[in-house]
Amino acid sequence: MKKLLLRTLMACSVLGISPVSAQAPAGHPVAIAIHGGAGTINKDNMSAEKEREYRSKLEQAVKAGHAVLAAGGSSLDAVVEAVQVMEQSELFNAGKGAVYTFDGEHELDASIMWGKNRQAGAVAGVKTIKSPIALARAVMVHSDHVMLSGRGAEAYAATLELDTVSNDYFDSKARLEQLHKAKATMKLDKTAQLDPLALDYKFGTVGAVALDKEGNLAAATSTGGMTAKRWGRIGDSPVIGAGTFADNQSCAVSATGHGEYFIRFNVAADICARVAYQNVSAQQAADEVIHNVLKPAGGTGGVIVMDAQGNISQPFNTQGMYRASIDTSGELKVGIYGHSQ
Amino acid sequence: MKKLLLRTLMACSVLGISPVSAQAPAGHPVAIAIHGGAGTINKDNMSAEKEREYRSKLEQAVKAGHAVLAAGGSSLDAVVEAVQVMEQSELFNAGKGAVYTFDGEHELDASIMWGKNRQAGAVAGVKTIKSPIALARAVMVHSDHVMLSGRGAEAYAATLELDTVSNDYFDSKARLEQLHKAKATMKLDKTAQLDPLALDYKFGTVGAVALDKEGNLAAATSTGGMTAKRWGRIGDSPVIGAGTFADNQSCAVSATGHGEYFIRFNVAADICARVAYQNVSAQQAADEVIHNVLKPAGGTGGVIVMDAQGNISQPFNTQGMYRASIDTSGELKVGIYGHSQ
Repeated sequence: MKKLLLRTLMACSVLGISPVSAQAPAGHPVAIAIHGGAGTINKDNMSAEKEREYRSKLEQAVKAGHAVLAAGGSSLDAVVEAVQVMEQSELFNAGKGAVYTFDGEHELDASIMWGKNRQAGAVAGVKTIKSPIALARAVMVHSDHVMLSGRGAEAYAATLELDTVSNDYFDSKARLEQLHKAKATMKLDKTAQLDPLALDYKFGTVGAVALDKEGNLAAATSTGGMTAKRWGRIGDSPVIGAGTFADNQSCAVSATGHGEYFIRFNVAADICARVAYQNVSAQQAADEVIHNVLKPAGGTGGVIVMDAQGNISQPFNTQGMYRASIDTSGELKVGIYGHSQ
Repeated sequence: MKKLLLRTLMACSVLGISPVSAQAPAGHPVAIAIHGGAGTINKDNMSAEKEREYRSKLEQAVKAGHAVLAAGGSSLDAVVEAVQVMEQSELFNAGKGAVYTFDGEHELDASIMWGKNRQAGAVAGVKTIKSPIALARAVMVHSDHVMLSGRGAEAYAATLELDTVSNDYFDSKARLEQLHKAKATMKLDKTAQLDPLALDYKFGTVGAVALDKEGNLAAATSTGGMTAKRWGRIGDSPVIGAGTFADNQSCAVSATGHGEYFIRFNVAADICARVAYQNVSAQQAADEVIHNVLKPAGGTGGVIVMDAQGNISQPFNTQGMYRASIDTSGELKVGIYGHSQ
């Protein structure tokens, strides 16, 4: 394949033709990476059966996204497809299986961005949309706006043909137990203070980044937010630049972790800015932000990053991050713990 | 002054002492800049009396902020003070005088960020908080969160001693007329499409950036958003990285304009990233983003920028931007039209 490309390039060079754009060649190698949340994830608190379930679902999601790319579909379609597999699984804190708010409901956030033209869509605090990432995409494609919230966002969704559900569709026994534990450890004072012990319950956001055959990057993120969240709290997942960013000139990023830090440190966009302005690789930029900027500040979590050549990096400063990828050579990797795949 | 500093530096160099931190020297020269919105503002659509009102209120706001700095107060206090003067004036689309939503209400957004430690606070879609910037600051200081929204944010405000008002406190005759005009020109179809003519009604956001004697930068932004906005639309003003950003290592930015573009292009943080990573001045970075990135993409508006040395830049790609500043030498400037002060 590479030889054929080289020969074609050489032939065209003789003819004075530049057949392959550096940014968006037709037939660009495709790749995809996904995450299902980062946090206190280790072998000690995971049964072998649960681990098999996670690995199986991560593999299903990344393969679903990759199938879109392999069939010539866009990176936008691919990241939505992969995220929706995880939204539909109770294993992750997105869609079905989303965490509970302080008041025992589910408020979902999602965002999507396309690297081709930096178009973006986001929704915050929606309660009745079956697939929040589908609504985020609809906001991007069909509205003049980037970010819609709450009941207004649901009213907008009602103008489109999107699946709606009652809020209890998102219920799950495991998340309800987490709510009870979190509330027991929260300082129930008048402010929004949370006990640090409760912070572990907020990880589980899902996301995907992809590069399609046109050379276009995309990123998508979907979450139920933080267990026992109050006050209409909005985390980083629906904030373009914090939890999600994509620009063909640099990279695509989806984040998971302690959202407040990811907003303050503009994590997703900062990684891409470093790639664009500092002449460092996406891996170097992502490692620097996750390990040397966020961690010293107290921010825990991780990111998945795809650069314009399809290189994948997945750094995290927590014990583990649910993740999977299929790189430009077609190699599948699924990982949960430590720093290896 | 420079000679004295040089002599001191040389003397200390001999003694092995570094007396003046480049980032936060005590007694750092102070400076402040504010904006009151950008848009189709020119002499033809402005009476002499209205112009005097704007100039007077801008001068009052920037002087109020500067007085805080001159008395040794923090940049955080200064930007809040300046913004509140504008929130309390019907001249600007923030606080009293905020635009109307499609449904005839007011939904206010604000955010604040401190360059010292990148702490940030933001509120979106609040209806009963007299000073949204005061609530944004309270979220930053008192809560574990960065961004609160809607009724939840108001419930949080109720736990603090913040002034609340009924929504009609924000009413003004001029903004109601703008709503009627905007609705008349909107395509009232099922999607969120707005007629481009209606876009002119969304400018008028206010903001401030300041540098205090400790060398700490701060930025604040407050707005009523877009006239006739629907669907719980959130613009760039409460989005950290889009409408507001501050980092002592680079600069402080408050933006005003077509919010969707400012989110997609991560405008406030991108200007600071260019300063931090590209070795360009804040003026060069801001000019590049406003004129060569945003404008070609169709994004209209402007920013005020303060770098760590107190240099002020206020580029905009619209006909005018309400603005004022008091620089490190104490010189006051008030501007409305064109590219001059």
